[in-house]
Amino acid sequence: MSTVENMKYWVGLDLGGTKMLATVYDAEFKPLGRKRRRTKGSEGADSVTNRMIRTLRDAIEEAKLTPEQVAGIGIGIPGPVDQAKGIVLEAVNLSWENVPLAKLVRSEFDRPVVVLNDVDAGVYGEYRFGAAKSARTALGIFPGTGIGGGCVYDGQIIRGKRNSCMEIGHISIMPDGQLCGCGLRGCLETEASRLAISAEVAKAAYRGEAPHVMKTVGTTLADIRSSVLAEAIAAGDKVVEQIVRRAARILGTAVATSVHLLCPDVIVLGGGLVEAMPELYVETVASAAKKAVMPSFADTFKVVAAKLGDDAGVLGCAAWAEKTFSD
Amino acid sequence: MSTVENMKYWVGLDLGGTKMLATVYDAEFKPLGRKRRRTKGSEGADSVTNRMIRTLRDAIEEAKLTPEQVAGIGIGIPGPVDQAKGIVLEAVNLSWENVPLAKLVRSEFDRPVVVLNDVDAGVYGEYRFGAAKSARTALGIFPGTGIGGGCVYDGQIIRGKRNSCMEIGHISIMPDGQLCGCGLRGCLETEASRLAISAEVAKAAYRGEAPHVMKTVGTTLADIRSSVLAEAIAAGDKVVEQIVRRAARILGTAVATSVHLLCPDVIVLGGGLVEAMPELYVETVASAAKKAVMPSFADTFKVVAAKLGDDAGVLGCAAWAEKTFSD
Repeated sequence: MSTVENMKYWVGLDLGGTKMLATVYDAEFKPLGRKRRRTKGSEGADSVTNRMIRTLRDAIEEAKLTPEQVAGIGIGIPGPVDQAKGIVLEAVNLSWENVPLAKLVRSEFDRPVVVLNDVDAGVYGEYRFGAAKSARTALGIFPGTGIGGGCVYDGQIIRGKRNSCMEIGHISIMPDGQLCGCGLRGCLETEASRLAISAEVAKAAYRGEAPHVMKTVGTTLADIRSSVLAEAIAAGDKVVEQIVRRAARILGTAVATSVHLLCPDVIVLGGGLVEAMPELYVETVASAAKKAVMPSFADTFKVVAAKLGDDAGVLGCAAWAEKTFSD
Repeated sequence: MSTVENMKYWVGLDLGGTKMLATVYDAEFKPLGRKRRRTKGSEGADSVTNRMIRTLRDAIEEAKLTPEQVAGIGIGIPGPVDQAKGIVLEAVNLSWENVPLAKLVRSEFDRPVVVLNDVDAGVYGEYRFGAAKSARTALGIFPGTGIGGGCVYDGQIIRGKRNSCMEIGHISIMPDGQLCGCGLRGCLETEASRLAISAEVAKAAYRGEAPHVMKTVGTTLADIRSSVLAEAIAAGDKVVEQIVRRAARILGTAVATSVHLLCPDVIVLGGGLVEAMPELYVETVASAAKKAVMPSFADTFKVVAAKLGDDAGVLGCAAWAEKTFSD
């Protein structure tokens, strides 16, 4: 695209279930303008799309630019996308299905638009600017309500024929295990997600074994968040630490499976759980993974905490737009 | 490499534990010359290397060419390689370690040489010319004594920083399972390889439950080969069929793990076991895999039998040389 050569500004937008964040970057990916807005997913796809367009416009304005000066826009979506067609196949939290998002945004700004999965965007951000910088194969894992995954191989986001892949949360770790939200049983998510940890901690609290948790939030699952878990461990709730470590060990065996298949040199762990207790969590995962791989693979990878926090996604979106429209 | 442009001939050599096969191809990959020779691995790396060079020379002669007309040579090795440096890191069956093979062969013919893993070569061959032609992501699985795997993504053989990857035989499928040759426990190989099947069949024969096997080869593990298994099933040894189907189902769950991580569109199954009973084996793997993936992934992949047999490896070697030295 020869028309792109004279332009140096890239825009990322990370769409989440509760908020969206748009940032405008210069050619060196220094942020020039930034705008946050609530998603309000319940108002429907049209409303959310309009809010996204306003957010992009505000960020571009804050950067003191006009849309014409933007070389490309990358948008990260919480769900599978068809990158080639720029269609959001599904976004469960937003009740979206087959939304031609790239076309909608392009018709508004008349600039190139690329749509990608938000986890892929986060991993790409960490690969370009963060904890997995310059890795040949970077695997990102984000334990939360579920467990998201993404992989950058040789500078490319690995994806399936139509959609994103790296559904590490759904690899089987326990035959006839607990029911997963996807309909299968014994998926990694059922034992190692933040939600699985919270449920196990709630049981322990109910039994009187996690006094700090009981005192601060009780047994309400939705309130047993990552920060609560970290505080409880610091306050001496031993059983909470044991529960978190078990989940991290199980995640470590899933990391080992990924190592056997893909041989990533860097595995980046991110999300609230990791941010709340980076050392305990990352070290436990790393040590379990090293034990579970073939001896010759033990020194081929490192496990690290993500560095960029919320910026990983929006940076990854903008950088992926750069990669897509500069090649 | 501009010097390559006028040359159209590519040579592949597939080095196995017992025999080697070299083939010379024209630009359309029509075979022009071919030579087989026994490997005689026990005579040491120097001897084997010399036999490889003689085999290459013979094949080139049979094609009525001179080495100068060869654009590139690709060599497949039963073990991990450092592709970038052209070094065979290890070939257990040949007692090789850190053999600078590309350099040795290059010094003999003064032509570009690329070294790759033999399973990778087989998958690449099936991707270019066989059962996985034009797949975006082709995953190859070859159950034998162990279970080899390889993956071609977007035209590239996926590999780790230093070596080949896709060690699907060593992903964990049974916590505290049987001891694997790699030192871990419960690897896929321990329950689903041809060797695992043979051991289970030998037990059944010993107990009197596999009369055809008992009559033809007895309980000697080394003699219970894929063809014997197929014959026993055809002759009515029901328990042999049950054992093979169980192994295939377990392999199917490992396929599901690969689908969740990599979303391959084609999974190619090859090797002696598959060739001896393609329908029974492929259908059982496919059906188990479809059941073990998330519903939305069930129609994203197909499981097929390899098409090229022994030619897959040598074709893949030559075609990888073409890809490497034409890019």
